[in-house]
Amino acid sequence: MNNISISLIGSGNVAWHLGYQLFSKGYQIACVYSRNINHAKELADRLKTVATDDMRKVQEADIYIFSLKDDCYGDVIDAMPYHKGIFVHTSGSLTMEIFSHLSETYGVFYPFQTFNKMKIIDFKCVPVCLEASDEKTMNVLSDMARYIGCPQYHLTLHQREHLHLAGVFACNFTNALYGLSEELLEKENIDFDIIKPLIKETAEKIELLSPREAQTGPATRKDWNIINKHIAMLDNDNKRNLYRFLSQIIQEQQDKKNQ
Amino acid sequence: MNNISISLIGSGNVAWHLGYQLFSKGYQIACVYSRNINHAKELADRLKTVATDDMRKVQEADIYIFSLKDDCYGDVIDAMPYHKGIFVHTSGSLTMEIFSHLSETYGVFYPFQTFNKMKIIDFKCVPVCLEASDEKTMNVLSDMARYIGCPQYHLTLHQREHLHLAGVFACNFTNALYGLSEELLEKENIDFDIIKPLIKETAEKIELLSPREAQTGPATRKDWNIINKHIAMLDNDNKRNLYRFLSQIIQEQQDKKNQ
Repeated sequence: MNNISISLIGSGNVAWHLGYQLFSKGYQIACVYSRNINHAKELADRLKTVATDDMRKVQEADIYIFSLKDDCYGDVIDAMPYHKGIFVHTSGSLTMEIFSHLSETYGVFYPFQTFNKMKIIDFKCVPVCLEASDEKTMNVLSDMARYIGCPQYHLTLHQREHLHLAGVFACNFTNALYGLSEELLEKENIDFDIIKPLIKETAEKIELLSPREAQTGPATRKDWNIINKHIAMLDNDNKRNLYRFLSQIIQEQQDKKNQ
Repeated sequence: MNNISISLIGSGNVAWHLGYQLFSKGYQIACVYSRNINHAKELADRLKTVATDDMRKVQEADIYIFSLKDDCYGDVIDAMPYHKGIFVHTSGSLTMEIFSHLSETYGVFYPFQTFNKMKIIDFKCVPVCLEASDEKTMNVLSDMARYIGCPQYHLTLHQREHLHLAGVFACNFTNALYGLSEELLEKENIDFDIIKPLIKETAEKIELLSPREAQTGPATRKDWNIINKHIAMLDNDNKRNLYRFLSQIIQEQQDKKNQ
């Protein structure tokens, strides 16, 4: 148990995991706010604390961690009753200056990972990007990262925004491709399990090789027979365009590699 | 050591790993053919056997395993001097009937994995898709899969073609997205290591959740502020179109999930 108290503003996937990790490492969670009281209660129960859906009733704390959908910050910040303490958000895209009219001490604690309430995550695998209004605040955030076991990076807003964008490609878009492959297999009555080792190996390969070096498949080999056959097998224009598009990108990447 | 002999026709990534696994599990590798004699020799040395770049000099064997670029099969098969034994290819897209004029016994042994000479692979993580001209041949191929430790699936040509296509999405296209994220980070002087835990977690998540359930990010949340900001941050039309396209696909997938 350490003697730093934290109020959590938001109860989505990030707050769910980050809150629990802070709680289990001895931070005192003062309360959980969500505009949906049931969501707030669910997380508050987990963290042995109180829930509220009213910003005026948020408990005073040393640190306020905001984990909201980006376009919800404005209203919630405006309703904040306190003007002392460290104000932190967990967004990949927002400036920390959203808090500058509220307090003198604020920052960013952006965990660069994909969170889902259904899946436990090891915080050693959660790199966290920090930014702070001043050195003392940075030390508090840096200690917090160390305390809960996250590797930490100190990035500018500009870098963090680009990191977030890179994450959309490497996580959300990648997962969309997994979804397309699942759809293809379902239609042919093939168990999705058959493709899991391939997905795992593809992800593991980049520990050893850069994506360009690791690339295989018809587009790399410029195997037009297969490329055209595959395009013809797809059942709508969206998928056909996507296939063409990504094959072209692979060839550009290979050309760059061979330069 | 078992008493089945195999000649390998081809010396690319698949032959490299499959050949070595067969060799280390006691199959006798009779020779390695490649039209590039240096490639043939490199693999033959590894498998303690002889190399050739002349199909007329391929050693007679119980099984001939062809691992070639799909459009090279025609010429190579035409030059095959033997008409007895089991003829097998490792392609996701070709019918086994390419061998039907050559022998009465033939089949498919398609390892559904991404291979790279630079990276060792555990054959327990190589699902193999089998097809055979007859039951006896199927038994030989099935034993071979079991012997070298691969989970096996018996798929039709039609299913195998669709599996191959699904693999392009889940592996090659996914890897292309990793490449795009690497490019974005390089430009901002951010170490690629920061994104590796996210890539790994995204791949591991599907062991527990379907891709649709696992999805997170701005497109899932219909967070248009971020989506539009991200599109504006990309440096060419190709990437901007790809971002729009995949965001749209994610939203379609989410709509289906919510139906």
